[in-house]
Amino acid sequence: MSILVVGSVAFDSIETPFGKIDRALGGSATYFSVAASFFTPVQIVAVVGEDFTDADMEAFSGRSIDTSGLVRVKGGKTFHWSGAYGFDLNVAETRATHLNVFADFKPELASKFRSPEVLFLANIDPVLQLDVLNQVKRPRLVALDTMNYWISSHRANLDRVLREIDLLLVNEAEVRQFTGQANLLKGARALLEIGPTTLVVKRGEYGVLMITRERVFAVPAYPLESVFDPTGAGDSFAGGFLGYLGSVKTIDDDAMRRAIIYGSVLASFNVESFSLDRLREISRKDIDARYREFKTLTQFGDVA
Amino acid sequence: MSILVVGSVAFDSIETPFGKIDRALGGSATYFSVAASFFTPVQIVAVVGEDFTDADMEAFSGRSIDTSGLVRVKGGKTFHWSGAYGFDLNVAETRATHLNVFADFKPELASKFRSPEVLFLANIDPVLQLDVLNQVKRPRLVALDTMNYWISSHRANLDRVLREIDLLLVNEAEVRQFTGQANLLKGARALLEIGPTTLVVKRGEYGVLMITRERVFAVPAYPLESVFDPTGAGDSFAGGFLGYLGSVKTIDDDAMRRAIIYGSVLASFNVESFSLDRLREISRKDIDARYREFKTLTQFGDVA
Repeated sequence: MSILVVGSVAFDSIETPFGKIDRALGGSATYFSVAASFFTPVQIVAVVGEDFTDADMEAFSGRSIDTSGLVRVKGGKTFHWSGAYGFDLNVAETRATHLNVFADFKPELASKFRSPEVLFLANIDPVLQLDVLNQVKRPRLVALDTMNYWISSHRANLDRVLREIDLLLVNEAEVRQFTGQANLLKGARALLEIGPTTLVVKRGEYGVLMITRERVFAVPAYPLESVFDPTGAGDSFAGGFLGYLGSVKTIDDDAMRRAIIYGSVLASFNVESFSLDRLREISRKDIDARYREFKTLTQFGDVA
Repeated sequence: MSILVVGSVAFDSIETPFGKIDRALGGSATYFSVAASFFTPVQIVAVVGEDFTDADMEAFSGRSIDTSGLVRVKGGKTFHWSGAYGFDLNVAETRATHLNVFADFKPELASKFRSPEVLFLANIDPVLQLDVLNQVKRPRLVALDTMNYWISSHRANLDRVLREIDLLLVNEAEVRQFTGQANLLKGARALLEIGPTTLVVKRGEYGVLMITRERVFAVPAYPLESVFDPTGAGDSFAGGFLGYLGSVKTIDDDAMRRAIIYGSVLASFNVESFSLDRLREISRKDIDARYREFKTLTQFGDVA
């Protein structure tokens, strides 16, 4: 089994109430692939600049991550995002976005990347997402992430790619923006009409809702005493979620629910420190231990 | 077993994006006692005006609710609250508060009300809450609700009563206001230091966290396609929660968790229409059916 992610590798400069960091490794494909690699071999397709050093590459090494699709552009600079969070860690304030080499990113997949079991189209231009999809043999599962910018300004293209995917990852504000529905479930149903069979609504510290035409699955987030930096939480979630699904024989409702918990566990570790620091120090054993805690803290008995 | 509630009975005028209603029956003790009466006999102590009619009384009739402690003040007017909600149904905008007879409420408990198994001190002046507590033989369980006004302006009195109770019901903003802690778990620990052994943090559409010194229990809210009017959700929750606890032999962790689900179920029914309309038409069978759905929509398997 293999999982392919196409997205960004970036440097982030981040300020939170608890500290600040400059030029930390980030980007959707980075968080995703490290999180997913605990479960399934990952192939990463992204672009970086000449300033991306061998030391930066170490985040991927020693893991089941194929980085041969990580193109280093000579003379180019890596995508750089600067942002800040206040005490409400649910809301990021973007201070600067320098796309740099990412502005010309046009993924061309090597033939070995053209038959993934699971494909994650991280948050990039929907035209590129569709282009990637057209380059691969239809995977067992295609998941897509997006953001407010594509919803408001590239809606037609986004609709086009949504018709081709299985699973859409969104946050609550995006559901409302997309559908004009104040009620989340009604908005979710409207999104499912467009194409995806499953919607995963990320609610930050409030957990996750997974909605299909037939079912709803709801979980709180793992409660943490110290949320240090929420950057990458969504992509770590996606990595744990799809990584786990990439590792199972049958993707049924039971596997999807377990995957949501694994995703939540990965996201909960990720926010405990800056950048990938926490993900890089944990093991599958730590992940399973927190999964068990998750179960303990959400379990309750049958009707009395 | 019996459960005693001391709080408000009111008329509410409410506007939501889905409609408006005038002079609808409301008040903390009203919602609480109707919700709790599905599980345990309830004694209600509150005050109303002469404008409170026999038709209004019908909300309590045919249920295990002892209304002999509901004092009707001659020539007085019933507490009247006017408020509105926008599409974000988590936030109420108060338009007018006419305390009327509630301004002089000074509960004097008849002797038959002085030995409840469970006592719910709904949101009233902490001085009155303490006074009620001093009139009863120590119940098995004492729970208290409060609001931002008492936290900001009557903090010393509130601290005094908090030292005497078992369980505090709060929302997230109140935890932060009370403790100055941005992190909810840290704030919760600070509140537990004051006195209560258990904190129940109500998060509206995001569910509930129950926190003790040893444990955390987290549940999402029951997802609803139509939230019509959130007024009374917190008190319906408290009614289902404490009503269930009033009906069990042993109040252990298992019972507390079940109680949180029953509370969530009652709150979810309550918000489906104005006033007590929905609570008045459901049965224990409906409640248990939704409890089972709750279990289905939150359940997941063990570590793979």
